[in-house]
Amino acid sequence: MTDSDNLVIVQEVGLRDGLQSIPQIMSTDDKKRWIDAAYAAGVRYLEAASFVPARLLPQMADAEQVIAHAMTYPQLTVTALVPNLKGAEKAIAAGVHRIVAPISVSAAHSLANVRKTTLEMVEEFARIRALIDSADHQPRLIAGLSTVFGCTLQGRVPLSDIEDIVRRVLDAGCDLLALADTTGHATPGQVARVLQALRPLAGARLAIAHFHDTRGMALANTLIALEHGIREFDATLGGLGGCPHAPGASGNVATEDLVFMLDSLAYRSGINVEKLLAARHLLQHSLPGVTLYGTLARAGLPHGYTAPYPYPEEVAA
Amino acid sequence: MTDSDNLVIVQEVGLRDGLQSIPQIMSTDDKKRWIDAAYAAGVRYLEAASFVPARLLPQMADAEQVIAHAMTYPQLTVTALVPNLKGAEKAIAAGVHRIVAPISVSAAHSLANVRKTTLEMVEEFARIRALIDSADHQPRLIAGLSTVFGCTLQGRVPLSDIEDIVRRVLDAGCDLLALADTTGHATPGQVARVLQALRPLAGARLAIAHFHDTRGMALANTLIALEHGIREFDATLGGLGGCPHAPGASGNVATEDLVFMLDSLAYRSGINVEKLLAARHLLQHSLPGVTLYGTLARAGLPHGYTAPYPYPEEVAA
Repeated sequence: MTDSDNLVIVQEVGLRDGLQSIPQIMSTDDKKRWIDAAYAAGVRYLEAASFVPARLLPQMADAEQVIAHAMTYPQLTVTALVPNLKGAEKAIAAGVHRIVAPISVSAAHSLANVRKTTLEMVEEFARIRALIDSADHQPRLIAGLSTVFGCTLQGRVPLSDIEDIVRRVLDAGCDLLALADTTGHATPGQVARVLQALRPLAGARLAIAHFHDTRGMALANTLIALEHGIREFDATLGGLGGCPHAPGASGNVATEDLVFMLDSLAYRSGINVEKLLAARHLLQHSLPGVTLYGTLARAGLPHGYTAPYPYPEEVAA
Repeated sequence: MTDSDNLVIVQEVGLRDGLQSIPQIMSTDDKKRWIDAAYAAGVRYLEAASFVPARLLPQMADAEQVIAHAMTYPQLTVTALVPNLKGAEKAIAAGVHRIVAPISVSAAHSLANVRKTTLEMVEEFARIRALIDSADHQPRLIAGLSTVFGCTLQGRVPLSDIEDIVRRVLDAGCDLLALADTTGHATPGQVARVLQALRPLAGARLAIAHFHDTRGMALANTLIALEHGIREFDATLGGLGGCPHAPGASGNVATEDLVFMLDSLAYRSGINVEKLLAARHLLQHSLPGVTLYGTLARAGLPHGYTAPYPYPEEVAA
């Protein structure tokens, strides 16, 4: 591995994907504290909120304030999720660095999630592209393909469907492509097959993986994705965000578990796993009764553990 | 991958490593039923018991009967763990196919576990070798190196210590070498480094990995071990066998999770994951109150899941 090969981005998406799936509303102040703690731990990529109607998702009613707070950190790359053109207008106005628009490959999930067909979402995506191109502030545009590895409604998602949608969002001008295992169906073999099939179509734009740990495969899937050139991964502190279709099953892969594994392989995320573990207390305090996941926190760091290399901050200090 | 490259052995070790760490005694009849269910699911390698004094480990008092039952299956390779020469005599008399003798690389763990230093255990191992060589029935002899990846008592285990013990057990005539992450400390990076260092010393005899899932790394560690030529893995149904040093943390990797991941990569274990999931009920029934682990059982097989290829039995039928 060369020096640049071992740089990885771990994007904290708990404030969006974690919070959106739990009923308790986290206060705006607690969201700000979470951002502070994540930044202090070394997080430099943050999906901070989604711009959706507050009546549909009260948890995101304070998206503007949360994002404004995140934007006060000059070294933090802030991403907002938007399901439509109206959301994109708000995200651009908020000054975010990146916009991710979700597009379900599964037709059934697309209708259930955004009340649009997959192709209607691709059309909306093209309109978002045009909006960004005509704006003064131009965030990077990520196509967040969801239910890529399976769907609780539809079951299997054919590879030909994924390839078709990938071609369309590439044509529509996405800057980056994220593959999301929305429902925790992905297996290492499947991740390898999908990435092998899509790489010739998407080249370097195929950059981001978003794994859920519903069946305990998230870290193994991450290893396979690393071997296939993926260098950006979404995760949520404490694995926040259960899956309503699998009671007791965890949702997103826990940021601290992911960083711990990446550390062991000398992939540098710049994130300090001990500070992440400490930051879980903030979630426990602000979301009483909400189950946190993550196996590292359950067992603790191994006896005698030290981070395998100095983190950037520590080198700079 | 060629056809032989993708054959893997998954050895069920729940009857030994799983049961030995829980206080409830499983009845001999339930142990026999477990063996029947494992065999019916396709398990062909079984660590069935350990030959240790019943006053030290009452759970293993029926080792002879349990092994006798396992030996009734002609296609089942039966392994017994023995901590000393006396245990080896019993294992040979029982007719097992393989004997595994544990040797702790951590001096602190060795003294706590078997009241012998690591070098005293290597000497006992040499005596077991001589006993087998002089016996009419000659089981294969596995050196089960424990605490290879870290120790809750000692902390880090230096690579030079591992290399030293590996050289000694190779000299003492082990047929196969198993590396055990007894305490769930192993990380993918560490597994890669240890296997790279040991392969030139041990060649093909370095064959078996035994991972615990205490920190959720077992499947990722397995992937790395596969990439470094390991083709035999220990596991326990339902992840049976918690770690007393990490409350709430799981112990051995769950057989069903391991098989599910191997299936996805077209590694053929011959084990049917749906039958394994069904066999968990037997454990729940015979060990009331004992926590079972495994993320696949928690979430269930993915919607629309079918095993990715016919299993040997199904082809033959």
